[in-house]
Amino acid sequence: MTKFIGCDAGYDESAIVLFGVGYDGTTSYRPGTRFAPAAMRGESYSIETYSPHQDRDLCDCRVHDMGDLELCIGNSTRVLDEVERTTRTILSDGKLPFMLGGEHLVSLGAFRAVHAQYPELHIVQFDAHADLREDYLDEPLSHACVMRRAHELLGVDGRIHQYGIRSGTREEFAFAKAHTDLHAFAIDDARELRADAPLYITIDIDVLDPSACPGTGTPEAGGASYLGLLDALTHLIRNHNVVGVDLVELAPNLDASGSSTSLCMTLLRELLLLLSNYPK
Amino acid sequence: MTKFIGCDAGYDESAIVLFGVGYDGTTSYRPGTRFAPAAMRGESYSIETYSPHQDRDLCDCRVHDMGDLELCIGNSTRVLDEVERTTRTILSDGKLPFMLGGEHLVSLGAFRAVHAQYPELHIVQFDAHADLREDYLDEPLSHACVMRRAHELLGVDGRIHQYGIRSGTREEFAFAKAHTDLHAFAIDDARELRADAPLYITIDIDVLDPSACPGTGTPEAGGASYLGLLDALTHLIRNHNVVGVDLVELAPNLDASGSSTSLCMTLLRELLLLLSNYPK
Amino acid sequence: MTKFIGCDAGYDESAIVLFGVGYDGTTSYRPGTRFAPAAMRGESYSIETYSPHQDRDLCDCRVHDMGDLELCIGNSTRVLDEVERTTRTILSDGKLPFMLGGEHLVSLGAFRAVHAQYPELHIVQFDAHADLREDYLDEPLSHACVMRRAHELLGVDGRIHQYGIRSGTREEFAFAKAHTDLHAFAIDDARELRADAPLYITIDIDVLDPSACPGTGTPEAGGASYLGLLDALTHLIRNHNVVGVDLVELAPNLDASGSSTSLCMTLLRELLLLLSNYPK
Amino acid sequence: MTKFIGCDAGYDESAIVLFGVGYDGTTSYRPGTRFAPAAMRGESYSIETYSPHQDRDLCDCRVHDMGDLELCIGNSTRVLDEVERTTRTILSDGKLPFMLGGEHLVSLGAFRAVHAQYPELHIVQFDAHADLREDYLDEPLSHACVMRRAHELLGVDGRIHQYGIRSGTREEFAFAKAHTDLHAFAIDDARELRADAPLYITIDIDVLDPSACPGTGTPEAGGASYLGLLDALTHLIRNHNVVGVDLVELAPNLDASGSSTSLCMTLLRELLLLLSNYPK
Amino acid sequence: MTKFIGCDAGYDESAIVLFGVGYDGTTSYRPGTRFAPAAMRGESYSIETYSPHQDRDLCDCRVHDMGDLELCIGNSTRVLDEVERTTRTILSDGKLPFMLGGEHLVSLGAFRAVHAQYPELHIVQFDAHADLREDYLDEPLSHACVMRRAHELLGVDGRIHQYGIRSGTREEFAFAKAHTDLHAFAIDDARELRADAPLYITIDIDVLDPSACPGTGTPEAGGASYLGLLDALTHLIRNHNVVGVDLVELAPNLDASGSSTSLCMTLLRELLLLLSNYPK
Amino acid sequence: MTKFIGCDAGYDESAIVLFGVGYDGTTSYRPGTRFAPAAMRGESYSIETYSPHQDRDLCDCRVHDMGDLELCIGNSTRVLDEVERTTRTILSDGKLPFMLGGEHLVSLGAFRAVHAQYPELHIVQFDAHADLREDYLDEPLSHACVMRRAHELLGVDGRIHQYGIRSGTREEFAFAKAHTDLHAFAIDDARELRADAPLYITIDIDVLDPSACPGTGTPEAGGASYLGLLDALTHLIRNHNVVGVDLVELAPNLDASGSSTSLCMTLLRELLLLLSNYPK
Repeated sequence: MTKFIGCDAGYDESAIVLFGVGYDGTTSYRPGTRFAPAAMRGESYSIETYSPHQDRDLCDCRVHDMGDLELCIGNSTRVLDEVERTTRTILSDGKLPFMLGGEHLVSLGAFRAVHAQYPELHIVQFDAHADLREDYLDEPLSHACVMRRAHELLGVDGRIHQYGIRSGTREEFAFAKAHTDLHAFAIDDARELRADAPLYITIDIDVLDPSACPGTGTPEAGGASYLGLLDALTHLIRNHNVVGVDLVELAPNLDASGSSTSLCMTLLRELLLLLSNYPK
Repeated sequence: MTKFIGCDAGYDESAIVLFGVGYDGTTSYRPGTRFAPAAMRGESYSIETYSPHQDRDLCDCRVHDMGDLELCIGNSTRVLDEVERTTRTILSDGKLPFMLGGEHLVSLGAFRAVHAQYPELHIVQFDAHADLREDYLDEPLSHACVMRRAHELLGVDGRIHQYGIRSGTREEFAFAKAHTDLHAFAIDDARELRADAPLYITIDIDVLDPSACPGTGTPEAGGASYLGLLDALTHLIRNHNVVGVDLVELAPNLDASGSSTSLCMTLLRELLLLLSNYPK
Repeated sequence: MTKFIGCDAGYDESAIVLFGVGYDGTTSYRPGTRFAPAAMRGESYSIETYSPHQDRDLCDCRVHDMGDLELCIGNSTRVLDEVERTTRTILSDGKLPFMLGGEHLVSLGAFRAVHAQYPELHIVQFDAHADLREDYLDEPLSHACVMRRAHELLGVDGRIHQYGIRSGTREEFAFAKAHTDLHAFAIDDARELRADAPLYITIDIDVLDPSACPGTGTPEAGGASYLGLLDALTHLIRNHNVVGVDLVELAPNLDASGSSTSLCMTLLRELLLLLSNYPK
Repeated sequence: MTKFIGCDAGYDESAIVLFGVGYDGTTSYRPGTRFAPAAMRGESYSIETYSPHQDRDLCDCRVHDMGDLELCIGNSTRVLDEVERTTRTILSDGKLPFMLGGEHLVSLGAFRAVHAQYPELHIVQFDAHADLREDYLDEPLSHACVMRRAHELLGVDGRIHQYGIRSGTREEFAFAKAHTDLHAFAIDDARELRADAPLYITIDIDVLDPSACPGTGTPEAGGASYLGLLDALTHLIRNHNVVGVDLVELAPNLDASGSSTSLCMTLLRELLLLLSNYPK
Repeated sequence: MTKFIGCDAGYDESAIVLFGVGYDGTTSYRPGTRFAPAAMRGESYSIETYSPHQDRDLCDCRVHDMGDLELCIGNSTRVLDEVERTTRTILSDGKLPFMLGGEHLVSLGAFRAVHAQYPELHIVQFDAHADLREDYLDEPLSHACVMRRAHELLGVDGRIHQYGIRSGTREEFAFAKAHTDLHAFAIDDARELRADAPLYITIDIDVLDPSACPGTGTPEAGGASYLGLLDALTHLIRNHNVVGVDLVELAPNLDASGSSTSLCMTLLRELLLLLSNYPK
Repeated sequence: MTKFIGCDAGYDESAIVLFGVGYDGTTSYRPGTRFAPAAMRGESYSIETYSPHQDRDLCDCRVHDMGDLELCIGNSTRVLDEVERTTRTILSDGKLPFMLGGEHLVSLGAFRAVHAQYPELHIVQFDAHADLREDYLDEPLSHACVMRRAHELLGVDGRIHQYGIRSGTREEFAFAKAHTDLHAFAIDDARELRADAPLYITIDIDVLDPSACPGTGTPEAGGASYLGLLDALTHLIRNHNVVGVDLVELAPNLDASGSSTSLCMTLLRELLLLLSNYPK
């Protein structure tokens, strides 16, 4: 299996473990995020391992790329179980899990594993969509419901921090105002977050403006810039105990120029470098 | 809702009922058949309602297009239930159901309904793939297993007639030789079929050679020509009591030139005209 | 016919009437705007009816989508007549017409109808191109001439307000300086407009920067942002008596990622919500 | 201007004159044939000037490529006038006109010029569509009506020979049976034609099966093969007094692989070589 | 590295060694064959390892996929050296080399290695193009010259057998008639070849008709069918001592539907199964 | 040959000479820049010759478009020689050379010619990538090494001014810090440059953010805006003795919407107008 560039540490020696979950079985509109992990790995050799932003090199870090989970397309329950099991193992081995989606539903499996280990967990969500529906066409396990399920999992209000949200139903926004820490539209507020608890960061790439990242299934105008997102994430990681991260909803089949895949690869490199002092 | 060209009879007055099932939730490779019913309807206005082959016009027939089922993407069980329920209603109203997929799994819902009404049912399958797996990555409800489920449903050997099959595992071909009426590669044998029983015809469009129909998720070289398929279907319909038909696996997102969608629209027109003397 | 999401009020009860004019018969470079109305309707179900910007929902408004005019491609005169007739009817029924193009020439039909009803009409144009040519290859009815025809129609100077213009011949810019209220490049000035007269707003989507909306036939670098355009339009609508609107020049066939179509759908939702207190 | 490969004879010394008419102003479905002449010229350098079929080389012939007519998109009447004028000039200079479309309507301009010179003209049409409508949405000048206009022009029955036709309304087929020499479906009959009169050959490339030439606006399954078409044309040209030819309806924007453009270039080379003994 | 499906034998235990050479540095027209080996490997999991044609399974064979050579794009000399060195090693280890291109020039490196081991070597070429130019724009190392270089290498006439050739300059065809065993157009003659000598088979996939394989840089109408090519290759392999094979010129970037890549994967499976009794 | 719009001055009367070098023979990732000069020329007729920014018209300038160099794809040495020879001729005729790439390596040929004439030459580079590698896979003549070769050519430190650089190896950034005038990330600093020496400006279009110009082989997030780049270039040209310019790395095959090609055409027009007072 082709590994993401610079991520060829062995599992045992690694501090961060990268894995892919190419699942888009509940995507209601335009599928294709299933192709994201393989696309990012195969094309990662077009970027450099060195970051001039951070003056650090991925080759100096200890990241293990364990490849993609083998998935049963068409059965969300089993996919989430598999994601949870994998994440639990990585956590119990004292490593930081970094998941590449797939659609946003897959984050729920990771939420479950991380929450089991860190009951006081907070979740930071970068996303264009609230993803707070009770169900979608009567189905509770849908990408459109993932943060509602997360809220049920955490069991208390205020532990979900939402940035960049600019789409949802009236009910979702009402729910968010009542139960989450909602920051609609801009993402700059994320720089101000100071949470004592362990943090899981879930990044739906459609938080970016479609001009920066057109290659996603439900682009929504009026989003963040790449540098704005990178800046927010840098603040979050430097000031918190981040215990897990995922990056979801890249759809390479909708990325005719390749620029969205390239952006995600560069963002992944920067995040791995920022996280590479783990554990703190 | 835009209706397929020439299919604007009311439900009550109709002899044939067309409906779409844009489901591709178990597609393991390249999704997109979800877009087929809408694409065929919206673009059907580029073809004519008149067939010079048959010297008949769709406008003289009584076809009702009831649109697409509203589906819960990500839950195959419920999708199949919905297909079965719809097909049962159409049958019980004395009309012929014609389903547009979607992936091949959706045919199972129709099989169930038709078999309930006609226990002596035979199924004729045109397909490049045997679709006879016991399960796919432990999942029994998969497009790759649909004819195995059909065999379980019918409960006796020899009632499934397979034409054009040129891909499958060794186990699938062994199963076919033992339990179905298998005609690998060419489809001409279908002209010779003479079955007394009611017939359901399921057409996976990848039975055609990819040169004729590239717009499908798993193209397989060495298939049938359009005219060959039309000829086989013409013989079958003229000589049998056909009680239901489906056309599945067109993937418009893989059909850059539009020629595959066009072919399916023309084939659909021809089939509706052939079937329009129903009930026999 | 599929209606734009949330626009299913009956004609009689509606305050705003949406209609499509998929005409691109004079497009000199890359055609495809003919596909815009159908693409926007069919794909509108990927956005929400609720706007978090305005905290209002399209489902609470009274918008009727009357579908597309049936057009004779290849005869601009008749197309414009048909647009004019339709617009007149909507206006005479006391409703606000909102047209989806098609190329920019179609606006001329609406200009004629609105001007007949409101002789003191002002027109606000958002566009990258001046569209002020006397003729184009000797043809006066061309997308490149539509504002010149509008100027002739209004019959006096200063009633056309142009924002975002950054392309044209030397002659067009000279004409604009002499006869229109020209605001080249930026569109912020539109926030300052205060006109007592009834206003028709024509939005050529190429006023946006191609990074925000690449899916248009003649993209021109250096344009407005989505939020900038939305802000300008919000000011205009809130401060004026807007009696008609159109949105033209989206070319879905050039929008490989779908993000341009998505942006136009979101913009349309926002505009319909802003306009939905009509009549003032 | 880039010339078609091997067609760089001066006008005066030439026996055949090639010109492009990139007009698709009445195309009702998917436009793009406007790009065909430029695409064929620019990409012709990927084929050879030598034909192993004929053992002859285009460089030994005397073909002049006069480029594309400058057209007023949006005004069919003027386009046809310009085509007619150009064709008349070529004919009156004793040369053979070879036109590259563009949509099929442009052939009407050439028909007029050739008929003026040769009142006893016969026209041979290779096409999937009958193109015999009285009008299309009330417009008589449409690609769907071009052979009906041709029939009016010739003024007598039996002088239009149609090969490969497999799509049309019931009325068009009835008209054809009454007034033209119709050969539906296959094109082999064209080898048997023996006409004493001057012949104009109009080739709508959609006469080919979409597998051979997907890059056209309205592909129709069940068509001819490339070698079958070449064979029929070879017989026609060798046995008749061909006084003009056109090749229309290639749509490069629908030809993702480039194979349709390539086929048309090769076909053009073969035809120019076959015609290059002109005048007979 | 992802291996081609079913090709996971270790090098030492293998009888056939597969390797990729993603070089297209001299491609004069449309590049992209560099992507072929990776595309075929990554997508090979959409086909089966079992061949119903041969009733054999790739999993029962001993094929080692050693991945792609690391290449210096822009220096043909060094690329050919690297190909030659790799091929020599495989041969000297008593295994059969099977190379996936890349452009056709890469075959020259393999020719050199195989000829060094088997001085009496014959080469069988399936191709649309003669590839017999003395040089191309003064460059002797070009895809358009590879068989001319092969002729120089073999040093005697009649040892190159060309099938399917239908494009070239007059000089190339003259050279072929004088020095090679040329079979233009059809490929059926290949079934009749009986050569005592060791055979290297080089397959330029553009030997197929573009309808069967549009995804190649210089498609040429009038080619072979997939089943025709498979039949010819089956005869050749069963009746000769085949000592090396390559498959070149697939361009996945020009294969919008994926059907060309799929065809090449299926063809590769069939060839590996046919060759898997090696050494004879 | 089609000339770039408004660039039809004869060579002798011209002050600026435009030429294309469609070479991408060392491109390691996604080729296609070979198509840039032809695409820009052919599509330039969709922009205007008049610049409202400068209130000047290209038709009033004296620019000669000499077309593309005929290149031997696959031999970088000869390509660079040809570029050098052409540039020398233009310079010795007292004209300003403006080259359209092609990949960045081609700039080296121009550097050599300009440096021969102006030994005190400074080079200003706008680029996302440092291009300072010693070699790339042992090859010194690679797009990734072009500025390293330039540094060797100039022979002294500090004469290369790099703006917008945001990708490279650790070694390249170390080299830049030691030997060039490096301005990473933003390009605003270019407005401050004041150099007495003759200046050559090389613009790799990937200096722009991929949202502005996705059509390039190795897009890198976080780049400049179009207006920012235009502003920097305006300052540079107005304040310096610019003796040569190139614009490289546009890849039209990756520009599905056409907006990147359009941007480059508009940028070229602006630059030609800015330079058209030459010689100073």
